[in-house]
Amino acid sequence: MSEHQPGRHMAAEIDQQPGVFADLVARRGDIASVAGAIAARKPRFVLLAARGSSDHAALYAKYLTEVLLQLPAGLVSPSTTTLYGAQPDLRDVLLVTVSQSGGSPDLLEVTESARSRGALTVAVTNTPDSPINAAAELQVDIGAGVERAVAATKTYSATLLALYLLVDAIRGGNGSTVANVGDLARATLDQSADAVAEAVQRYRFVDRVLTTGRGYSLPSALEAALKLAETSYLAARAYSGADLLHGPVAAVDAETAVLAITSTGRGGDALHEVLDAVHGRGADVLAVGSVSDKVSAALRVPVADTAEEVAPILEILPVQRLAHGLSLARGGDPDSPRGLNKVTRTR
Amino acid sequence: MSEHQPGRHMAAEIDQQPGVFADLVARRGDIASVAGAIAARKPRFVLLAARGSSDHAALYAKYLTEVLLQLPAGLVSPSTTTLYGAQPDLRDVLLVTVSQSGGSPDLLEVTESARSRGALTVAVTNTPDSPINAAAELQVDIGAGVERAVAATKTYSATLLALYLLVDAIRGGNGSTVANVGDLARATLDQSADAVAEAVQRYRFVDRVLTTGRGYSLPSALEAALKLAETSYLAARAYSGADLLHGPVAAVDAETAVLAITSTGRGGDALHEVLDAVHGRGADVLAVGSVSDKVSAALRVPVADTAEEVAPILEILPVQRLAHGLSLARGGDPDSPRGLNKVTRTR
Repeated sequence: MSEHQPGRHMAAEIDQQPGVFADLVARRGDIASVAGAIAARKPRFVLLAARGSSDHAALYAKYLTEVLLQLPAGLVSPSTTTLYGAQPDLRDVLLVTVSQSGGSPDLLEVTESARSRGALTVAVTNTPDSPINAAAELQVDIGAGVERAVAATKTYSATLLALYLLVDAIRGGNGSTVANVGDLARATLDQSADAVAEAVQRYRFVDRVLTTGRGYSLPSALEAALKLAETSYLAARAYSGADLLHGPVAAVDAETAVLAITSTGRGGDALHEVLDAVHGRGADVLAVGSVSDKVSAALRVPVADTAEEVAPILEILPVQRLAHGLSLARGGDPDSPRGLNKVTRTR
Repeated sequence: MSEHQPGRHMAAEIDQQPGVFADLVARRGDIASVAGAIAARKPRFVLLAARGSSDHAALYAKYLTEVLLQLPAGLVSPSTTTLYGAQPDLRDVLLVTVSQSGGSPDLLEVTESARSRGALTVAVTNTPDSPINAAAELQVDIGAGVERAVAATKTYSATLLALYLLVDAIRGGNGSTVANVGDLARATLDQSADAVAEAVQRYRFVDRVLTTGRGYSLPSALEAALKLAETSYLAARAYSGADLLHGPVAAVDAETAVLAITSTGRGGDALHEVLDAVHGRGADVLAVGSVSDKVSAALRVPVADTAEEVAPILEILPVQRLAHGLSLARGGDPDSPRGLNKVTRTR
């Protein structure tokens, strides 16, 4: 066996995403069957349970649920079940558990407990034979294949796509909005490569990083901060654009890099005033997204244009490449960051 | 008029908290009336809408709702209403809007929209004649008095107490658990003063700060990070203990200060393994809470002992003093941090 080349798994898995997306779209029928079973039960509330990167995917699904399904939704705090033994009445509730490994003990307990209290339970995982799949009534397999790098990339984006396909099918859609998402992912990786390489050089020595986004792109900002923290050991912090203006903008200065997710639509539009404010405080703005050329920024990373609710599936790709490149530039190995485990074992 | 002494408003407002708590407990009857009206409507799902510090108070209320009321709950993403015009069916839903000013346009729109779609709406504010109070069917006045420092202190803790009294009364409680919370707050401020002064010296030059907590104390960790970011311009970031172990622990090293909220009970117990892990990575742990003497830590800040679900009302007090002291030590003015506004105006 050859010696391990730092970051080769993460690089390979980033590049696999266009193919993973195309495969998942081709299996839309499986997800539509699950969606049919959910629609037949007419849930009135949706709860989403997840940890880590999957928690950002769950937040994306919360937006989809509220906007496209017109149902109120919330993210589960697993500790209310695992630490405090809460036993809420969950009739008419749909619980969606999102976990690439399907193995987190706390999410398993949340899923089992919710099912026993009347919730319709769905597992969205990359591991069809996992304990969480066994505990849930319905299963969605994201089918991203084995992920060897510890930092999640293709399992994150494939989870977003699976959740989009699920929600779209519940409302009776035919998936047409994402029919070509594999091609768009390939185009995004190609057209963003030069700007990402430039960003790696520009931010190699950065210490202060904030990430921001609004609406559907807030989960992307959260995932960007986590990815930078995991692979480059940056204490990156994410804020919704609205919250950033309220208070934490006080911490923004000329030593701060602000990674802003700027996609087509109302979330991206609402970010203009935020970026004007941080730009006015001297911050260095890196704009990532399909309308990155429309905002105040020092550097812009293009992303293929698509519907606003689909953009999070694409805009994270160059961010993953940035995290990978920064980690290598700073002497790390993004495949196995110090101290990281693949499966959350915390209860 | 004398010249402004930096931080005097924030210091005064921190010190007012024992009295504010005692006054609020004395007005429990008003809150119990609101609770009675809520209980009579038998909500099946609770949504909480807030921004900034109030968002952390809302998360605390989410835990109370799930554990003490046995109802599923979720935090509202205001942008699904304000940006995307979501119109979910909110019959049987209780919406609690938490806003010290009662003036945030996006929370006003969320409240109006939810009421028009069938939700029972409650405003929890420090401003009884605010637009959000007018929009909501029921009102809880936290009665903290005028807050002149821009960084919220007494309005945050009083909001926690008001939410506790509300939830406790909905389940038929008589508020006995918090009957002496004013005295406990005074004791906490007194007994923590020396350790806070030592912490101000120890962390004066710190750059990397993480905050962590689990269960009921997660909101305290989030509020601690926000307070440090607002007043001391630290890029502090909060993680649930469970999430921290999963990934971001990779960013923890000997240059990292970890502010850990360690209270009596299951949340505090669950933090032991987290602190062992970060301590093992060489991080400098500042433990704040009633069981801070039980964990691996470099410095410990005591907090008066109380029921686990009440601890967040007390454990934030020395953290506010720490933020105030660090801001002054680093040459800032915690009363009017650069770039901060008192009312969120973002839509």
